[in-house]
Amino acid sequence: MNATLTTAASMTAALPSFEQIRDAAARIAPYAHITPVLRSAALDALSGAELHFKCENLQHGGAFKFRGACNAVWALTDAQAAHGVVTHSSGNHGNALALAAGTRGIAAHVVVPEGAVRAKVEAIERAGAILHRCAPTQAAREAMSAEVQRTTGAVLVHPYADTMVMAGQGTLALELLQQVAGLDALITPVGGGGLASGVAIAAHGINPALTLFGAEPQGADDAAQSLTRGTRVTTVVPDTICDGLRALIGEPNLDALITVSDAETIAAMQWLWSELKLVVEVSSATVLAAILQQRERFAGRRVGVVLTGGNVDLHALPW
Amino acid sequence: MNATLTTAASMTAALPSFEQIRDAAARIAPYAHITPVLRSAALDALSGAELHFKCENLQHGGAFKFRGACNAVWALTDAQAAHGVVTHSSGNHGNALALAAGTRGIAAHVVVPEGAVRAKVEAIERAGAILHRCAPTQAAREAMSAEVQRTTGAVLVHPYADTMVMAGQGTLALELLQQVAGLDALITPVGGGGLASGVAIAAHGINPALTLFGAEPQGADDAAQSLTRGTRVTTVVPDTICDGLRALIGEPNLDALITVSDAETIAAMQWLWSELKLVVEVSSATVLAAILQQRERFAGRRVGVVLTGGNVDLHALPW
Repeated sequence: MNATLTTAASMTAALPSFEQIRDAAARIAPYAHITPVLRSAALDALSGAELHFKCENLQHGGAFKFRGACNAVWALTDAQAAHGVVTHSSGNHGNALALAAGTRGIAAHVVVPEGAVRAKVEAIERAGAILHRCAPTQAAREAMSAEVQRTTGAVLVHPYADTMVMAGQGTLALELLQQVAGLDALITPVGGGGLASGVAIAAHGINPALTLFGAEPQGADDAAQSLTRGTRVTTVVPDTICDGLRALIGEPNLDALITVSDAETIAAMQWLWSELKLVVEVSSATVLAAILQQRERFAGRRVGVVLTGGNVDLHALPW
Repeated sequence: MNATLTTAASMTAALPSFEQIRDAAARIAPYAHITPVLRSAALDALSGAELHFKCENLQHGGAFKFRGACNAVWALTDAQAAHGVVTHSSGNHGNALALAAGTRGIAAHVVVPEGAVRAKVEAIERAGAILHRCAPTQAAREAMSAEVQRTTGAVLVHPYADTMVMAGQGTLALELLQQVAGLDALITPVGGGGLASGVAIAAHGINPALTLFGAEPQGADDAAQSLTRGTRVTTVVPDTICDGLRALIGEPNLDALITVSDAETIAAMQWLWSELKLVVEVSSATVLAAILQQRERFAGRRVGVVLTGGNVDLHALPW
C-alpha cells in the first residue's frame, strides 16, 4: 500500500444527510452571514443564461469555509472543544476555523503549507490562530496535523473530508434556493469536494431535478479524471494558479464536470470584477469560466453560481 | 464678467424638495436596483465606528448616477423626450444617461472630455450613447453640449446642476435610511455637489439631527474652500486621481467637509477591496479615507457610508 493510497483512505468521511445540513443551518445561524445573491445584466448578456451569483466572498472570513468550520466547532461537546481544534489548509479553511473557534472561545491550530497565499496566511494570523508551517504536500500537511493533535489534544477539523464541514458548506445551497425561485442548475468550483458534496445533497434534497455542475482547473483535474475512469484518481500533482482548488477530491458526486484553463479563469475573474463589482479570488472565477466555455449547456437556464471567496493579494493580481 | 463666473452661473439649478425626492423614488423604482448595504467587522474595528456601506457600485451602470439620470429622463414629457437627451460627463453620468435613455427608448448624446477613464468611455459606448469628444475643461464641455442641443433638439441633462438629477441621487439616502435604523451620520464624496445636495435634503427630511459629512480630494477642494470663505469658490483647477470628483461644486450644503490626500484615498480603496470584497472606484474611497483620517469624529457612531461607484480600469490600478 503506497503513501498516496494511505492518504486517500484517511480522507474518507461519511457524507452528511439532508437533515444534518438543515441542523447545520440552525447551528451556524447566530454566527454566519446570509450572503446576498447578485445579478449582472452584462454577464447575463455575455453568457446567454440567467446567472444568480451567491456571494460567499461576503461571508465571514471572505469565504464559504466559515460555514463548515462554524458547524464543526459548534457540533463539538464541551469536553471535545476544551482542547481546541486543528486543521491543515491552504488558507480559507484555516482562517474560517480560527474565526469559528473564536466564536466559541477555543484555540485554533492551523497547519499552513509553505507557498500559501500571503494575504490568506496573514488573515489566519489576524483571526487569532496558532500557526504551524509544513511542506506543501498533502502528506506533510496530514503528518503535522497528527503531531499537533497528539501534543495538544485538539480535535482535527479536516478542510473537506469531515461530515460536519460538508454539512456546513451545504447550508449555502439551502440559502440560495430559498433566495432564488426556479433555479434549474447550480455550479460550484471543485477542490476537495466538500463544498460540492454538501451543495449537491442540500440542492437535490430540495429539488432532485436540479443539475449540478462542477468547475475544475485543468491543472488539478482529479475529479474529472475520476469521473471519466469511474474510480477515484488520487495521483494528480496540482499545477494551477487556483490555490483554493489544489486539494484532491473526496467523492465525486456531480452531474457534470467542466475543466477550465487558467487563462479562461483569469478572463472570467476580470469579468466578475469589472461587471459584478466584486472582488473574488481566482478559484471562484472557474465557475464563470466554465459557463462561458460551454455557453450552449447553460443558455436560457436559470443558474445558481457559487462565488466561493474573495481573499486576494491585491499586489499580485494574475493579469 | 469672466468665463469662470459665467460658467458658475450657468450651473445654478433649484434644489429639489423632499417631496420631489420621494416622487423620484417612485419614478425610478421600475428601473433602478435597491442596492444592498454591507458591513465589515474588520473595517468597524479599523475605524472604531459602525459603518454601513451603501453599495451604489452595484447600481445599474456601476454607479449612483443612474438614479439621477433615470429620474431626469422619465420626468420629461413625451414631446421633450422625442429628440433625446445630451450631457457632458467624465464618465459615470454619461453611462447612466445612456442606460436611462435606453429604458425609455430615446437617444442619448454624451460629450466626453479627452483624458476620461478608458473603461468608462467604453462603457458609455456599450450603453448605446452617441459620443462627442471635447477638450478636458468645463468651458469646452458646456460649449459642446450647447452645440449638440442646438443641432439635435436634445434636452440637456446636466451631471449635477439639475433639479431632477439631484432628486434622483437623493433617493439613495431615502433607501439607506429605510434599510438601516438609527444612523446618526452619513458621509458622501463631494464632486459637483449633486449627490451631496440630494442626499442632504433626503436625509434631513427624514432625520434633521443626522450629521452630513462630505469627503473631498485635496486636489479638488473647491467645496472646502467655499465653506471656509463663506462664498462659492469656482477657480480651483482640479488635480487629483479621483476622476469622478474633478467637477466644481454647485451649492455647498454639508455639516462638515473633510479633505483627503490621494495617498489616503488609495490606502482606503485597498481596505475596501480587501475587506469589503467590493470593487469601488477611487472617488468612492474618499469617504473611508476621511473616516480613517478623523477617527475621533466618527468613533462610536453609526455611520452611513455612500460608495458611489465601481467603474475601474483593472489594468491601471493606482497601486
